[in-house]
Amino acid sequence: MDIDKNIKAKVAELLTEVRARNPLVHHITNYVTANDCANAVLAVGGSPVMADDKTEVEDIVSASSALVLNIGTPKFDTMDTMLIAGKRANKLGIPVVFDPVGAGASSYRNKIADRILNDLKLAVVRGNISEIKAISGIASYTRGVDAAENDALTRNNLAYGREIAKELSCRLNCSVAITGEIDIIAKGDIAYYVENGHKMLSRITGSGCMCTSLIALYCGIAKDYMEAAAAGVLTMGLAGEMAGEKTTHIEQALYCEKSNEYRKKEVSCCEKGTGTFRIMLMDALSCIKATDIEEKGRVYWSES
Amino acid sequence: MDIDKNIKAKVAELLTEVRARNPLVHHITNYVTANDCANAVLAVGGSPVMADDKTEVEDIVSASSALVLNIGTPKFDTMDTMLIAGKRANKLGIPVVFDPVGAGASSYRNKIADRILNDLKLAVVRGNISEIKAISGIASYTRGVDAAENDALTRNNLAYGREIAKELSCRLNCSVAITGEIDIIAKGDIAYYVENGHKMLSRITGSGCMCTSLIALYCGIAKDYMEAAAAGVLTMGLAGEMAGEKTTHIEQALYCEKSNEYRKKEVSCCEKGTGTFRIMLMDALSCIKATDIEEKGRVYWSES
Amino acid sequence: MDIDKNIKAKVAELLTEVRARNPLVHHITNYVTANDCANAVLAVGGSPVMADDKTEVEDIVSASSALVLNIGTPKFDTMDTMLIAGKRANKLGIPVVFDPVGAGASSYRNKIADRILNDLKLAVVRGNISEIKAISGIASYTRGVDAAENDALTRNNLAYGREIAKELSCRLNCSVAITGEIDIIAKGDIAYYVENGHKMLSRITGSGCMCTSLIALYCGIAKDYMEAAAAGVLTMGLAGEMAGEKTTHIEQALYCEKSNEYRKKEVSCCEKGTGTFRIMLMDALSCIKATDIEEKGRVYWSES
Repeated sequence: MDIDKNIKAKVAELLTEVRARNPLVHHITNYVTANDCANAVLAVGGSPVMADDKTEVEDIVSASSALVLNIGTPKFDTMDTMLIAGKRANKLGIPVVFDPVGAGASSYRNKIADRILNDLKLAVVRGNISEIKAISGIASYTRGVDAAENDALTRNNLAYGREIAKELSCRLNCSVAITGEIDIIAKGDIAYYVENGHKMLSRITGSGCMCTSLIALYCGIAKDYMEAAAAGVLTMGLAGEMAGEKTTHIEQALYCEKSNEYRKKEVSCCEKGTGTFRIMLMDALSCIKATDIEEKGRVYWSES
Repeated sequence: MDIDKNIKAKVAELLTEVRARNPLVHHITNYVTANDCANAVLAVGGSPVMADDKTEVEDIVSASSALVLNIGTPKFDTMDTMLIAGKRANKLGIPVVFDPVGAGASSYRNKIADRILNDLKLAVVRGNISEIKAISGIASYTRGVDAAENDALTRNNLAYGREIAKELSCRLNCSVAITGEIDIIAKGDIAYYVENGHKMLSRITGSGCMCTSLIALYCGIAKDYMEAAAAGVLTMGLAGEMAGEKTTHIEQALYCEKSNEYRKKEVSCCEKGTGTFRIMLMDALSCIKATDIEEKGRVYWSES
Repeated sequence: MDIDKNIKAKVAELLTEVRARNPLVHHITNYVTANDCANAVLAVGGSPVMADDKTEVEDIVSASSALVLNIGTPKFDTMDTMLIAGKRANKLGIPVVFDPVGAGASSYRNKIADRILNDLKLAVVRGNISEIKAISGIASYTRGVDAAENDALTRNNLAYGREIAKELSCRLNCSVAITGEIDIIAKGDIAYYVENGHKMLSRITGSGCMCTSLIALYCGIAKDYMEAAAAGVLTMGLAGEMAGEKTTHIEQALYCEKSNEYRKKEVSCCEKGTGTFRIMLMDALSCIKATDIEEKGRVYWSES
């Protein structure tokens, strides 16, 4: 496959537009990564608002450009609140992006996911392969909120992942993004693959949630939600890649007064430093430019 | 106007006292920025405690030096809990600092804000201009939790902002702080203006919430709550300024082995790195010294 | 006392095993430090899942290798949820680790702690000295969630701390860890002391909570929970120590082009930078190697 320059140009354009228009993204989300998601949305150019009480979600969503439903830490009233906000969003034509965090890990999460899929019109669903399999009704190896090792999406099972994404996309009539070593964004017969990324993204909490928030951010200004999904996934993957490079690079410079041997030791150590990586990731999200997307994006188009 | 050396000396003194006395600050706050607020209070020299269940807030506030009420993510029981804690604080003479996050964005937030303003005796109210207008009953452009662009407080509409702060201050008989490009702290006819700050403070989540927590921290040891409000705002603004400088500076040093051209590119990039900025901000809060306040503070006094 | 090489070898082995087996740790915890705990568990090699609704905790805990009960921000349903999850964990032989955050600060927290101690079989209890005294029924100086100054565990009152840990351990028939300047891990007549650590650990939020999460992570693969407790405490203390060294070191290198005078000033400033310290701590948790444990661990064994 060849890199698809059209979608890269489109994503670059969307990034510029997000920064110019500063869309408001309403989140009903978990308390573990809410801070990360808020900072990610701000970094890329939007304005986040978290609000999850029944009493106010209709007011909040009505003023927003997009709605994120993330079931990372569901409480007794989460399902009702999400349905209320989602229905209002549907009525007003505001795009709804769903992140089925941990679907398959409890029957409560499965129940919430089912109701959201059945009762709401979604713009995009994003999850790891275990979660997408779970909401597709396929037996998965879900264990907690991370993709099961037996499930992980790699170059070897890409066709299988794509088939699952396609089926769910057709059933829900929305875009489906599965993120992993390679990311798939499918809508009916069409799919994008995104190669950008970094292995450390799976060693920090919130990389999936932030990706979903960025998809919603782009949905807030895009006409085509599949392009918005590709934009969110590509922005996150490329920022992760840039952060991975910077994490290593910084350490090299840091020890410029030391011997070569010492320096090498530090560099190899630092390739595993998840604290620094998180900061570099947020820096990359706030610094990423339209030209970075065009120059470094590795996104492919495919039709089946 | 000339810089007001008296208030700077007072703030420097309060900073020293906070570090010596380590006041406990009880927060009833949102889950998005709770971690940031806890770390900010610890960094400056206090001890934070977050507790928001009806059953325990009276116990917790009774042992505290100040109480923060922050409505960033209100739930069904938030109003009751805040009133219970606030009334106990009032009874014991413990200062209550209110942050009307997102006031104007939902009728539920407006209702909570109204009850807090009516039922409690507040020491300080801090918000952005949209929030302060909303709780003053003035039509505002509130959209989510960030100040609306049409509303933003700048050099050009400072007199207007001051008038609003003054009126609310007189109505509530407490200090009112409006933070923005320039910050206003008003109590009746008197006002301080704080010029310190950095544009990146508006590109991270929690800078407003942290400012409110610092105001409460200072209220915990100050006799004059207006001075405590000025201390919180000045500490936050100056730390932001120091962080902004350091964010740039670090990158210059980081690439000391590279060519000039490369270095310049990195520096300009880094001026937008919100991940690094957040860390430098926390570093600055933990490193800021009384002499920094006296040497670098740009705070003005005015009477009308 | 001599450094105990046996326990260090055991901890090194457990660290290697954690990374190989990636245990899932179910947290019912507070929203202030949930993100820190999730990242700490990921950094050391596990997989965290936060879930705290009655409806799903039995499902979640059943798939997990260990359960953390942390009462940092209790809500009305926290006690019930913790008991439901804990009883299921007990039934399945899954280790339960309890962190009595803020015990002694409210009667509600005392009540929850009592029920957990009475109704559940615990593997490890970890707290600061004020919290452990509170749940032992000894009058303490608890104030909020930080150890009271009058209470702090130092070299001078180590025997007293050890006595308290021993008594609670005997009463509950589980391991008890008290963390402070020196850490104690007691089980009946036996105790380990850990000297590793850094004073900045007490200037950031979450260091206690993360320590508890790491203990649970090790419990998820260990046969002996006292060794797991020692492993968690040692990993956290050593990572803090490594972070403290790195926080200083980085600044020295950063200003390599500047004059000596300037450099010295920056170094002393940075020794107080809690933002940088937090990042270095997470880096250390993700980089720490079995050989670090064996080479740098300062852990002692004692029998009484």
